[in-house]
Amino acid sequence: MSDASMNPTPSPTGPAGCFITVEGIDGAGKTSHVEALAQRWITRGLEVVRTREPGGTELAEALRALVLARPMDALTEALLVFAARRDHLVRVIEPALARGAVVLCDRYTDATFAYQGGGRGFDLAVLTQLESWVQQGRQPDLTLWFDLPPAVAAARRAAARVPDRFEAEPLAFFEAVAAGYQRRFAQAGARVARLDASLTPGEVAAQIAAALEARSW
Amino acid sequence: MSDASMNPTPSPTGPAGCFITVEGIDGAGKTSHVEALAQRWITRGLEVVRTREPGGTELAEALRALVLARPMDALTEALLVFAARRDHLVRVIEPALARGAVVLCDRYTDATFAYQGGGRGFDLAVLTQLESWVQQGRQPDLTLWFDLPPAVAAARRAAARVPDRFEAEPLAFFEAVAAGYQRRFAQAGARVARLDASLTPGEVAAQIAAALEARSW
Repeated sequence: MSDASMNPTPSPTGPAGCFITVEGIDGAGKTSHVEALAQRWITRGLEVVRTREPGGTELAEALRALVLARPMDALTEALLVFAARRDHLVRVIEPALARGAVVLCDRYTDATFAYQGGGRGFDLAVLTQLESWVQQGRQPDLTLWFDLPPAVAAARRAAARVPDRFEAEPLAFFEAVAAGYQRRFAQAGARVARLDASLTPGEVAAQIAAALEARSW
Repeated sequence: MSDASMNPTPSPTGPAGCFITVEGIDGAGKTSHVEALAQRWITRGLEVVRTREPGGTELAEALRALVLARPMDALTEALLVFAARRDHLVRVIEPALARGAVVLCDRYTDATFAYQGGGRGFDLAVLTQLESWVQQGRQPDLTLWFDLPPAVAAARRAAARVPDRFEAEPLAFFEAVAAGYQRRFAQAGARVARLDASLTPGEVAAQIAAALEARSW
């Protein structure tokens, strides 16, 4: 496997060619902010590619459906998540970044470390090796981390939707996922902007705006 | 990941609890001999589990359909093949061996080294690491290798069936696959019995019988 990093230099004048991910446990309210982010850049004339993981290609969406619907061994799940990521990266994310689009992705590898690593207790060294093979150095330029106490997220989910295989997990699972995010982000440095997702939507939007302004985006 | 090998001691009186795989390029005539093998042990009162890779479970068969039907990056393909293998091993192969069944599997990891490693030129070190994670030391007790010149196999395939995504590859691909098998089996030792699959079905059956007799099976 080649070691060459595929990360381009971020544009100094805006997020063109930048890879932005949105992370947090189910119920943290991510989805409702992604649309506003996309509109912000579309109105400036930038191409915005909105996508999600697992998913984002026909193959990866088929794999997502398998992972969300069926019980499986933790290693099987990790291999499927990274297979979906590889297809997504090769077919959608890298070509979009290369043509100068803003890629806005709902969850990425941080979620694998949180859900499979934290939630399922799966070997982090295996995840790190898979990340290295699949991503060849590609990391997000900015990750918006919607941080929320698991009990608050659970109450929001209960009010909002029918749970999938992950969302149906007990509170202890989400506490382990939240701890997995914290462990992962403790080492992630400046690419991660932590948002206090327990605040009102307006307050969260203001935190996002501050994170973008700090990057002159 | 635990390092403990899950291989049981093969029964001294027959293949009960033994894992037998059948390998070779498409068109080598494997399928027509597997039924005879199964009958040989069923008539002796043994439970025989006939299965195949990729496949053998509902999830793994769904993954097989994706791998055979769609073009994809070599790493994506390798991750899917090993995800399918993990599900198959955990749900079908290990439980069957534990209860004393003979497991008769059409292709296994040797085929991954031949097709993805040899045929696609994919990194053997990555395949070796995936094999170690997924199998935890589990290897077949006997592998029947149907060795056949790729040109002969191609002529047989052309006469026999509609090709899938692999079977439709040009002759050079199958020459690389055959070389991949040879490289893999050069290091496999006594578990592999090479059969000259260019001979008549009756002669191949006699070679198989000799391999079984050598093991007092």
